[in-house]
Amino acid sequence: MPRLLIHRLDPASRLVRLMLAEYGVPVTLEDIKPWTRDPALLEINPAASVPILVDEGGLPVVGVLAVLSAIESRYAPDTVAGLIPESPEANAETWRLLDWVLLKLNDEVTRYVIEEKIVKRDRRGGVPDPSVLRIAKANLVEHMHYFNWLFATRHWIAGDTMTLADFALAAHLSSLDYLGDVLWETSQETRDWYARIKSRPAFRTLLSDRIAGMPAAKGYADLDF
Amino acid sequence: MPRLLIHRLDPASRLVRLMLAEYGVPVTLEDIKPWTRDPALLEINPAASVPILVDEGGLPVVGVLAVLSAIESRYAPDTVAGLIPESPEANAETWRLLDWVLLKLNDEVTRYVIEEKIVKRDRRGGVPDPSVLRIAKANLVEHMHYFNWLFATRHWIAGDTMTLADFALAAHLSSLDYLGDVLWETSQETRDWYARIKSRPAFRTLLSDRIAGMPAAKGYADLDF
Repeated sequence: MPRLLIHRLDPASRLVRLMLAEYGVPVTLEDIKPWTRDPALLEINPAASVPILVDEGGLPVVGVLAVLSAIESRYAPDTVAGLIPESPEANAETWRLLDWVLLKLNDEVTRYVIEEKIVKRDRRGGVPDPSVLRIAKANLVEHMHYFNWLFATRHWIAGDTMTLADFALAAHLSSLDYLGDVLWETSQETRDWYARIKSRPAFRTLLSDRIAGMPAAKGYADLDF
Repeated sequence: MPRLLIHRLDPASRLVRLMLAEYGVPVTLEDIKPWTRDPALLEINPAASVPILVDEGGLPVVGVLAVLSAIESRYAPDTVAGLIPESPEANAETWRLLDWVLLKLNDEVTRYVIEEKIVKRDRRGGVPDPSVLRIAKANLVEHMHYFNWLFATRHWIAGDTMTLADFALAAHLSSLDYLGDVLWETSQETRDWYARIKSRPAFRTLLSDRIAGMPAAKGYADLDF
């Protein structure tokens, strides 16, 4: 069985887990704290980042872009549409929104929340910097406006069918939701979409995640939140 | 002819230009200052980022990941190997290093240099913050150590053949080189590789770029630098 090196609240790790679960690929999860820069991790990945996919017999596949590419080419089903559409327009829209989530949402929101609430606390018993969290939360409000606007006219984020971009956004929002940082009450359209994607079988593994000493926020695992 | 909306020193725009030139696809370049958030740009791309590829008749392809995917599927030659290898190991190594450059090098070095030296000056006639530039330069030294280490045993960054990861790194280093921020004298292995990639026909368009009021650093366009 392939092994997947992850951190439970790392959104890139969550995206990859959702993709594997949707494609029906069982993996053994190995929990890593990338920020400790463990020598065994650095030897596989000098960037000290996760996810890392270790297939039986193969070389490790390192970093989210490499792992997404590997999963799509190795495990995408032949019989049904995969998560990366082939039609030019749907493909471009999927990648545009993957770019939005993996680069922009991450840069403006998720990375700060994870750094302040998870990394700082674990690394030096620190407390989050409220001014950083305030900026991240204000940025998230802007992002949610945009997602609400998209979901007002779309069933899935890139159009009529579910794509990898839905899993990317769900991965990020689920990390933030674990930490209690998503204001669902003011984001009805996005909430409806999230309820739909959260109820998929692929999501179950994420909903049972727990971080020692940091309980999930109320409603995190509820399908009716 | 397809149009490509870019900024001359934006490394993602440069990566896409290199890829198109290597595949022999002529495009019309349209210069954009993404930070001015021009309404015409926001209508095409609410993220206000470049590159954007506008094919005749098609919808705009927005953001670097979408444009890379579109170019590879529309323009990669059938007769020779494309820039994204198919063998699992080479594919994973190419994406690992694309991840490194597009996310890590950008996050730790390039974005700060562009923001301080280009955006700030253009937006409000500001001057760069020396403390930010100092950190970016120190980070670049660490990255160059790693690239030197790779190039000590590899002809191209992901192995024996040139890939998109070479163009990604060349795009970033060429932006930094235009601004005089690459210390070539302490990076012999990377310099040898850069001299090789810089002499490719695909690179010519980048070497003739000039920004009004900001001359290129000495050696920028020289093949023997």
